[in-house]
Amino acid sequence: MKNSRGLSRRVFLSGMLAAGASACRNGMAEVLLTESGSGEVAARGDSADAYAWDTQGILELRKSPFAKLHCVPVHAVAIQEGFWSERRHTNRTSSIPSLRVSLEEHGRMDNFRRLSGRSQAPRLGRIASDADVYKWLEGASFVLQSQDDPELRGQVQDIVSMIKAAQEPGGYLNTYYVGEHVPERMTPLVQETGSELYCFGHMLQAAIAYYRATGDPVLIETGQRFLDQFLIPSYGPAEEKKPIVSGHPEVEMALIELYRTTGDRRCLDLAGYILQGDERILLSPEKVDNLYCGIPFTSRTKLQGGHAVRALYACCGATDYYLETGDRAYLRTLSLLWEDLHDRQMYITGGLGALSQGESFGDDYEMPNARAYCESCAAIASMMWNWRMLAATGDAQYADMIEQALYNGINSGMSLDGRTYCYRNPLAFDPAWSTGDRHTPNGQLRNSWYDTTCCPPNLERTFASLPGYFYSMSEQGVYVNLYDNSELNWMLASGNKFRLRQTTRYPWDGDIAIDVTCSSPETYTVFVRIPRWSQRCDVRVDGKPAEGARPGTYLPIRRQWTGGEVIRIKLDMTPRLIRANEAVLADTGRVAFQRGPVVFCMEGQDQSSRPQSSLSAYSVYDSGDTSFSYDPAVLRGVGVLNHPGWQRSAPSSQPLYQVSSENRSEAKPVDIKMVPYYAWGNRGMDAMQVWMSLAYPGKGS
Amino acid sequence: MKNSRGLSRRVFLSGMLAAGASACRNGMAEVLLTESGSGEVAARGDSADAYAWDTQGILELRKSPFAKLHCVPVHAVAIQEGFWSERRHTNRTSSIPSLRVSLEEHGRMDNFRRLSGRSQAPRLGRIASDADVYKWLEGASFVLQSQDDPELRGQVQDIVSMIKAAQEPGGYLNTYYVGEHVPERMTPLVQETGSELYCFGHMLQAAIAYYRATGDPVLIETGQRFLDQFLIPSYGPAEEKKPIVSGHPEVEMALIELYRTTGDRRCLDLAGYILQGDERILLSPEKVDNLYCGIPFTSRTKLQGGHAVRALYACCGATDYYLETGDRAYLRTLSLLWEDLHDRQMYITGGLGALSQGESFGDDYEMPNARAYCESCAAIASMMWNWRMLAATGDAQYADMIEQALYNGINSGMSLDGRTYCYRNPLAFDPAWSTGDRHTPNGQLRNSWYDTTCCPPNLERTFASLPGYFYSMSEQGVYVNLYDNSELNWMLASGNKFRLRQTTRYPWDGDIAIDVTCSSPETYTVFVRIPRWSQRCDVRVDGKPAEGARPGTYLPIRRQWTGGEVIRIKLDMTPRLIRANEAVLADTGRVAFQRGPVVFCMEGQDQSSRPQSSLSAYSVYDSGDTSFSYDPAVLRGVGVLNHPGWQRSAPSSQPLYQVSSENRSEAKPVDIKMVPYYAWGNRGMDAMQVWMSLAYPGKGS
Repeated sequence: MKNSRGLSRRVFLSGMLAAGASACRNGMAEVLLTESGSGEVAARGDSADAYAWDTQGILELRKSPFAKLHCVPVHAVAIQEGFWSERRHTNRTSSIPSLRVSLEEHGRMDNFRRLSGRSQAPRLGRIASDADVYKWLEGASFVLQSQDDPELRGQVQDIVSMIKAAQEPGGYLNTYYVGEHVPERMTPLVQETGSELYCFGHMLQAAIAYYRATGDPVLIETGQRFLDQFLIPSYGPAEEKKPIVSGHPEVEMALIELYRTTGDRRCLDLAGYILQGDERILLSPEKVDNLYCGIPFTSRTKLQGGHAVRALYACCGATDYYLETGDRAYLRTLSLLWEDLHDRQMYITGGLGALSQGESFGDDYEMPNARAYCESCAAIASMMWNWRMLAATGDAQYADMIEQALYNGINSGMSLDGRTYCYRNPLAFDPAWSTGDRHTPNGQLRNSWYDTTCCPPNLERTFASLPGYFYSMSEQGVYVNLYDNSELNWMLASGNKFRLRQTTRYPWDGDIAIDVTCSSPETYTVFVRIPRWSQRCDVRVDGKPAEGARPGTYLPIRRQWTGGEVIRIKLDMTPRLIRANEAVLADTGRVAFQRGPVVFCMEGQDQSSRPQSSLSAYSVYDSGDTSFSYDPAVLRGVGVLNHPGWQRSAPSSQPLYQVSSENRSEAKPVDIKMVPYYAWGNRGMDAMQVWMSLAYPGKGS
Repeated sequence: MKNSRGLSRRVFLSGMLAAGASACRNGMAEVLLTESGSGEVAARGDSADAYAWDTQGILELRKSPFAKLHCVPVHAVAIQEGFWSERRHTNRTSSIPSLRVSLEEHGRMDNFRRLSGRSQAPRLGRIASDADVYKWLEGASFVLQSQDDPELRGQVQDIVSMIKAAQEPGGYLNTYYVGEHVPERMTPLVQETGSELYCFGHMLQAAIAYYRATGDPVLIETGQRFLDQFLIPSYGPAEEKKPIVSGHPEVEMALIELYRTTGDRRCLDLAGYILQGDERILLSPEKVDNLYCGIPFTSRTKLQGGHAVRALYACCGATDYYLETGDRAYLRTLSLLWEDLHDRQMYITGGLGALSQGESFGDDYEMPNARAYCESCAAIASMMWNWRMLAATGDAQYADMIEQALYNGINSGMSLDGRTYCYRNPLAFDPAWSTGDRHTPNGQLRNSWYDTTCCPPNLERTFASLPGYFYSMSEQGVYVNLYDNSELNWMLASGNKFRLRQTTRYPWDGDIAIDVTCSSPETYTVFVRIPRWSQRCDVRVDGKPAEGARPGTYLPIRRQWTGGEVIRIKLDMTPRLIRANEAVLADTGRVAFQRGPVVFCMEGQDQSSRPQSSLSAYSVYDSGDTSFSYDPAVLRGVGVLNHPGWQRSAPSSQPLYQVSSENRSEAKPVDIKMVPYYAWGNRGMDAMQVWMSLAYPGKGS
């Protein structure tokens, strides 16, 4: 059997796995993989198999017994001219190419080449550096899932063959644990903090994304060899094997996606074993908290103390495990942890992981603004986890959180020109502050390079895979998760082809039109998401009201669709003044501004009258007088808010403490201008704040 | 020449120093020291020398050319039944004895004994552990300066001889840098972070306090041997010597006090050299900031980033250096740093050093409440520095800061029973928070023991030396710095004896009566301190108004005092609602309560209606309705404030974020009860907060 280019000999995966495989997943045996991994690609649609590589989305959930929703392929969605198209264009033409050059310049590729004799350069980078290459590769592969790009494809294939060549005959692959570091492989301490399996997990995710872009399973085979020849023979629950602890969770979700792709049940079982923890390894309570591993996942009740990315990657893996096994203990734990995140740990930007110390979740409600850590990777991990929870439940609350993170705490992580990235995403900043750490060199929060450059490629893979998040499918029909000009061309469970085409100026405008086209009339449901923040909304089909829309749910519109119908959604874009729960001590006496999904902030340079550099001299009224406009001249075109407030004399001219009744410094009324939070710091690092001091009636502060 | 007990042969210090000494200080040569160090004591007043050991106070400033004020001996002041007497009684009868036992139990004494073969126990404790013994010894010696106590004196003398016996023949003395650690002595890294000279500085301070208690110079001689035989021959500015960097400043002030005590000018010069920094040692910018050394002290402009105790101990040494040399560059730098502390870095409790990370000062105005580090030692260092600045200037602003720290951020550091101590002194606490670090094991802030037990003996020496802070002397007369029932018996510059006797219920009451008695009539000035916080005050002498009292100054009352006069001072004890500068983001929308020098806080258990454990449900009105009462039944008798406010529903039942206009949870009016901050956490670790959320008119929050 040949593919359309006639270049690759195909074999059944079940054959490839014959040596070490256990039971293959029902119906998955016919997934086709190339044998040679020669870097040659299969063409899309070259298979009669409904589950073929080119039909797989971000996750392959169509056979997952406990998935209520499943994904559409990334290529099935075209995001058109609108809010996200420029971001994605920048990602493809600026971020991904420039990061590839940076990875080269910092020796990250040579780390691999050296192992096959193609480079003499010394190893550079930290223990987890391989993962940064893998994440770049995954991002580039998602670009190729959307559209072919011969130049990028060539670069990707070079890197793929470079990785493959670096694999040892015994299946091992990691550029750090070589030479003098060989004895450290899989030692207990390295398992805890050495990022060895973390790198392998990212390798698998890249392998799968590359496979879904090209049909070429070469890296999947590489990963499979790591499993078959190195990991599984020596590590695992069996008494004669050594125990595994996954000190930086990541490999769990990767193993389960590999299981979904190849049908190798051992991968799912291995993930389950890792999530359960091996009693032979006893971690200190601090490590159990921070590394978020080492005890049964289902025994957890809190995120507090957990390294944010580790904790949420563990949640991703656990959700994947639930999606395959239906183990209710997992769903209970996941729900508890999600509530913990949603109710007590999440910044209004969707950012999370408040503390620099341990890159971790703080106490309940502990969310400092200036010192907020809010690693870009953590907001991305939240999006990934919520995507899995959405698949498990179909509950719109997870889509709400995806939107919140995506438009704000993730989107802030990449500069508008796509050349610099935030590791931290604080909610207040002042150039006079030194709130930095090793990820904010010289107080700079937007940098083109980090020695641990995890966030840049993570942002890139997120934006590259974004089309795959816009829609979901179920037995009943199609879910519209996100709004922007876009077109979905895919098929229903029946096999009928259909198209949804969105037309909107979202998020600057709340009007969305969705044109429905079908190859033939069929009764199914279009689930349109009513965001939680839209307290009023109006949904019509061909002008007739569709009843029952409630904020924070999907409105199911079930009917026979014949094609040509138009769904019109009007969301409530009234600017909102948000108060935090009183227990959030950092936000006492403050409000934040939100409009639609976009959180706003004030930057010093936008204020007509600016007191030195500090924004703490400003306060705003708790009133409904916010006005909105779209300004094409600001920050490449953004929505802008204006709100009345006060400007007091510069704080530095006031005493540190003052009797309240004497606390009457000069204040003048001002118009406070706000821009979207995601765009802050794109005109130099100026003072910024999301949470603004409330003006007291009559006192100006 | 024999002392009254006839036990010690005396020698002139100048003789003792003959081997290595340079010029002795004018007029100091006749200071008498025992030669043998046999632990036998001289009796008070057994010298015709006006500068004899038993006339020396906390600092010996009477010959310091640039000191405007100088100290009275600790024994000249008797603190009588009142606010501080119970604290001092507890310190003497509970804290100091129990800490001695703890130091024994944790091997800190055996560390010394082992070196003279008196113990076989292995060394315990961290690198700076010797300093903890020295500080205990200094505290006990201050107790003995006030009053003899044979049992304590015996214990002190045992420890003194134990220390002396641990000194090597070559003069070296440190229980850590022995055996395998000998090669580390004074290596660059140990100088930076090894606490070697820090320990030596505390050894000198203990030696001097012991000398001023007993007349026995044995430990001064020990210190002198360290200098003469170990340090000075090999280290210092000369080209053939190795450079010194004082990685934990402390030795500077100790060396200068040694100079004041012995007249050995080399000690002053060495301190000056250390404060200047040696260009042969180049520290990283981070170390220059945090260790607060390595560059000329006079080049500093900020405290930001500095380890709080290091920075302020450096300021102490620098002020001492100014007091002896009059170098104006030092005074300029000290004034700048003091303003930085006072205007941008100091908690309302007088606590300082906001950040756990590096135990350091944060950015300007960065003062988190729950995570406040506020090490007890740092507030004490502030008191010590302000004491020196007060001596240099006679400016009451320094006495104000001493009072603020003493009554609040220092006083909070020791439990009311004297058995437990705070390392950190946060301004908000909740048992549900895990804001701990290694100094708050299991979230406990009051502990009887810390592995680095610097704060407990530091608190002890502060309370033991407290009488020495109450009054100062100058050419013009006497300064009244602090208020409490007390009696000063001392002499004027003329040699005339006089007595001041305070009668007051301060700090619970603002009325103070001072009876003046003189051995013969003389014209001089009694400077009475009008605290900065007392916006109104009334001062009378024998019923006649003394004009010119201004808050934050000393009111000079110059007249011929014949004895029998009564000065009456009425301070304004109206409770004050305090607002922080807007730039203090942690205090936005909050007020704190103060009355007199005492800062108040609310603790959960005092509230009649308590919502679960969180105090964030409470808010207070910005009004003048605070009432005060003294409650002898609470916390061994304290002043209590009551103020009207609101209690809302428990925060945990509210969403994390809510549109402001919908943010109307149930609120009920409540009476909020507050107790002094210094007494918090003495009835179990309950929720506590100093800064309270302001109620918005009509909204209850």
